[in-house]
Amino acid sequence: MLTLQDCQALDQADVLRPLKDQFSLPPGLIYLDGNSLGAMPKAAPERVQAVVKQQWGNDLIQSWNTAGWVHWPEQIGDKIAKLVGAKSGELVVTDSTSVNAFKVLSAALLMAKQDHPQRKWVLSERSNFPTDLYVAESLCKQHGMQLILLDDEPVSSALSDQVAVLLLTHVNYRTGAMHDMAAINAKAKSLGVLTVWDLAHSAGAVEVDLQGSGADFAVGCGYKYLNGGPGAPAFVWVRDDWADRFWQPLSGWWGHERPFAFTPDYRPAAGIARYLCGTPPILSMAALDVGVDTLLAAEAFGGMKALRAKSVALCQNFIEWVEQSCSVHGIKLASPRDPAMRGSQVSWCFESENSGQSVGSGSEGASQAYAVMQALIARGVIGDFRAGDGAQHADLMRFGFTPLYLGFEQVWRAVQHLREVLDQREWMRPEFTKVHVVT
Amino acid sequence: MLTLQDCQALDQADVLRPLKDQFSLPPGLIYLDGNSLGAMPKAAPERVQAVVKQQWGNDLIQSWNTAGWVHWPEQIGDKIAKLVGAKSGELVVTDSTSVNAFKVLSAALLMAKQDHPQRKWVLSERSNFPTDLYVAESLCKQHGMQLILLDDEPVSSALSDQVAVLLLTHVNYRTGAMHDMAAINAKAKSLGVLTVWDLAHSAGAVEVDLQGSGADFAVGCGYKYLNGGPGAPAFVWVRDDWADRFWQPLSGWWGHERPFAFTPDYRPAAGIARYLCGTPPILSMAALDVGVDTLLAAEAFGGMKALRAKSVALCQNFIEWVEQSCSVHGIKLASPRDPAMRGSQVSWCFESENSGQSVGSGSEGASQAYAVMQALIARGVIGDFRAGDGAQHADLMRFGFTPLYLGFEQVWRAVQHLREVLDQREWMRPEFTKVHVVT
Repeated sequence: MLTLQDCQALDQADVLRPLKDQFSLPPGLIYLDGNSLGAMPKAAPERVQAVVKQQWGNDLIQSWNTAGWVHWPEQIGDKIAKLVGAKSGELVVTDSTSVNAFKVLSAALLMAKQDHPQRKWVLSERSNFPTDLYVAESLCKQHGMQLILLDDEPVSSALSDQVAVLLLTHVNYRTGAMHDMAAINAKAKSLGVLTVWDLAHSAGAVEVDLQGSGADFAVGCGYKYLNGGPGAPAFVWVRDDWADRFWQPLSGWWGHERPFAFTPDYRPAAGIARYLCGTPPILSMAALDVGVDTLLAAEAFGGMKALRAKSVALCQNFIEWVEQSCSVHGIKLASPRDPAMRGSQVSWCFESENSGQSVGSGSEGASQAYAVMQALIARGVIGDFRAGDGAQHADLMRFGFTPLYLGFEQVWRAVQHLREVLDQREWMRPEFTKVHVVT
Repeated sequence: MLTLQDCQALDQADVLRPLKDQFSLPPGLIYLDGNSLGAMPKAAPERVQAVVKQQWGNDLIQSWNTAGWVHWPEQIGDKIAKLVGAKSGELVVTDSTSVNAFKVLSAALLMAKQDHPQRKWVLSERSNFPTDLYVAESLCKQHGMQLILLDDEPVSSALSDQVAVLLLTHVNYRTGAMHDMAAINAKAKSLGVLTVWDLAHSAGAVEVDLQGSGADFAVGCGYKYLNGGPGAPAFVWVRDDWADRFWQPLSGWWGHERPFAFTPDYRPAAGIARYLCGTPPILSMAALDVGVDTLLAAEAFGGMKALRAKSVALCQNFIEWVEQSCSVHGIKLASPRDPAMRGSQVSWCFESENSGQSVGSGSEGASQAYAVMQALIARGVIGDFRAGDGAQHADLMRFGFTPLYLGFEQVWRAVQHLREVLDQREWMRPEFTKVHVVT
C-alpha cells in the first residue's frame, strides 16, 4: 500500500488539482457523498445572493428579461449538453428527474405504439432506481403495457422485438455498476427498441455520449455530480430526430410555442423546449448554473476524459487499499472490479450480512454496514448507507468519488479511518448501532 | 378625490402598516405587480444564504435530516393550508402549478370515470390561464374526454350532469374577475361534478375556504401573493376524503409510502403526500417558506380578512381616482366594479382599442395600453401588460395590489403618474411604443 507521502506526491502531480479550489468544504471533512449531494461551489453563495437581492429584490419582475431568467432552462441545458454528448439546443433544465422520466417515457411509449403497435413490454431492471420504476409502473398501467424487470439476466440478452422501450439507469445507484451504453443502444436499435437512459449517477461523473452512442431519450439529476445544490432542477434530453414527433403529456405553458401569447390552445414549441412545463425555480436554477460551471472549468484540463481518469484512479486505489487493510473483517466489494463497468462510486458490504438485516425506518436493528458508516461519519468521513432487501441484496456502504474536489491523500485517510473503525470495533458502540432516519 | 395628505392619514391609521417592514423594495418604486412576482421579504436573503452556506455548504447531505429538508413540503404546506381554508396535512408544496394541475386533474378524471363513467366533458373557461387549459387538453386527449370552454356564459348555468370535472381559476389572471367558489361548488356538487380550482391569483390575496366551500381539488402558485421568489414551488391540495382514492400518475419516489425503503414497486403514501413526486428544490423552498411567513405574520392583525379589507380599499380608491382623473383619455375599467367579484387586481383597457392590436413577440406595433405601461414603468410604477386576442379581448394594463406592502399614498402617487403619462402624451414617445419581449 502507498504511504501518505506517496499520496501527497500523487496529489502534487495531479493536473486537476486546481479545480478543487472551486469548492468549499468544511476543514478536515472527507466528503465521499457527492453521488448523493454534490459539494457547494465557492461561487454559489454569492451568485444565489445576487439573484435574491439584486434580481428579485431590486429588479423584480423585469429580471425575467433583464437577467434573462426566461432563457436559463435552455442556457444551462446547453452547458450540460457538453458534458453528456448532446447537441446544443437538445437538452433543457426543468422539473425533477422523476417528472422528466414521466415525460420522456410517455413520449417513448407514444412513439413505440405508433411504430410497433403490437409491442407491449417496457424492459427495465429490478435494481433500477425506484422512481424510474414507479413512473414506468404508472405509465404501463395507463398504456396497457407490461413492465418487465430483470433480476440477474444481462439486459442485452433480454432485449427482443417484443420490447417497446428499454428504461435503464446508466450507473446503478447502489453498486455503481455501469452499463455499456453504446452496446446496448446498438442492440436495441437493431431490434427497434427505444432507449430511455437515466443519467443521475453519470452526468458529470463519467463520459457519456448520448448522440454518438445512439440513445433516444435521457434524463438526469442536477444535485449529484453536477453540484447544483439540494434538490437542484433536473435535465431532459431527446434526440433531435424525435423531439418534434410527439407531445409529452405535461403540456404546460413553458413548453408552448409562444408562452406569452397566452393562446387557449396548446401548440408545442419546436424541439426540446416542448419538454418544459411550468415556471422554473430560479434560485435553485442559479445554484445549478454555478455547479455546472465547475465541471466546464475542467475543459481546460482535459474535460470529462481527464476527470474520469482521475475518478478511476481514486476508486482503484480505494478498492486496493480497503482490501489490503480491512479484508480480515469480512468486508466485500459490492461494485464491479473492472473500472470500465463501474461509475464513480464504490460500494461495500459485509460477508456476514449478505442477506442483510432490515435497517432504516421501521427496522428493529442496525446492520454492520449501517453502524460502520455511522462511525465513519462521526470521524468526518461522509459516505452513505443503503439498506438491502433482506434477501438477494445486502446492506451497502456507498462511497462516491468526485475527482473535482477529492485527492489521493483524502482517500488514503478515509481508508485509515475505516480500518480503525473495524480494528477497534468502534462501530459496535451504541450510538452507531442505533438506527436513525436514513436518507 | 382625496388629497395626498388624506392618503397619508389613511396610511397612518392602517393597522396593517407594520407588515410593510417585512419587505425590501427599491426606494421610491411603486410596485403593483405582486400578482406576477411578489416582492422580496427582508428575511429572504439571510435565510437562503444560511441554507446555501450552512446547510448545503457545511452540513451537506446530513441536512436532509438535521435541517429537516425532508419535511419542508409538508411543513410549508401546512402553513399555506391556513391561508386557504385547508386542514393541516391536506396540502403540500411541490413542483410547479402546471405539474400539479396535471396531477389533480388526472385524479379527478379517474374519480369521475369511476363514479360517472358516461360523462365526457371537462368544463372550463376560454379565459382561464392557458397552462390549465393546455394540461386539460392533454388529459382530455388521453382519457377520451372533451374540453368545453365557456366564453360569456356563466359557469353555473353551463354546469350539467354531462360534466365530469369543472376546472376553474378562482381569480382571472387578466381581469381579476373572481368566481363565487362556494356557490359554484354547491351547484357542482348537486350535479355530481368534481371541482378543480387554480388559486394562483387567490392564495394570499383573497379569503379562500377550500374545505368550507366544498371544493374537491386545488393548486396554487408560490411566487405571486405568497412572495416566495421567482419560480417558487407551487402547492397542491386534495380534499382529505379523496386523497387516498387514487394514484396520481406522477408516481415519483417522494410520493411513495416509504421513499427510503427503495422498494421496486410503487405504494402511494397515505393522504396528500402521494402528490409529491421528485426531490424538492430546497433553495427555492427556503425562500417560499419566508414568503409564506410574511402572510402568517398578518394573523396578529386580523389575518386574511384584514388583508382582504385593505386590498378592497386600495383597489376601490385606485378605480375611483383613475376614473376621476384619466377618463377623458378613454381609459376603461376591465375588471369587475363590485369588489365581491374581483380579486386583488385592477385592469384597464382603452376604449379605442377594444379589439386591440397584436402586441408582443411577433407583433408589428404597440397598443396604447402597452405604451402607457412602459411609460409608467419608466417612472417607477410597476404594473404589467397583457395582450388581447385582437378580437373579443382588449389589450390590458394590469395592476396588482398587495396589502402587505402597499399603502394609500403609493396608490395615490401611481394615479398621478398615470394621469401625467396620459395628459402629457408621454406614452407616445418612441421608447415606449417600441415593443420588447413581454413577460
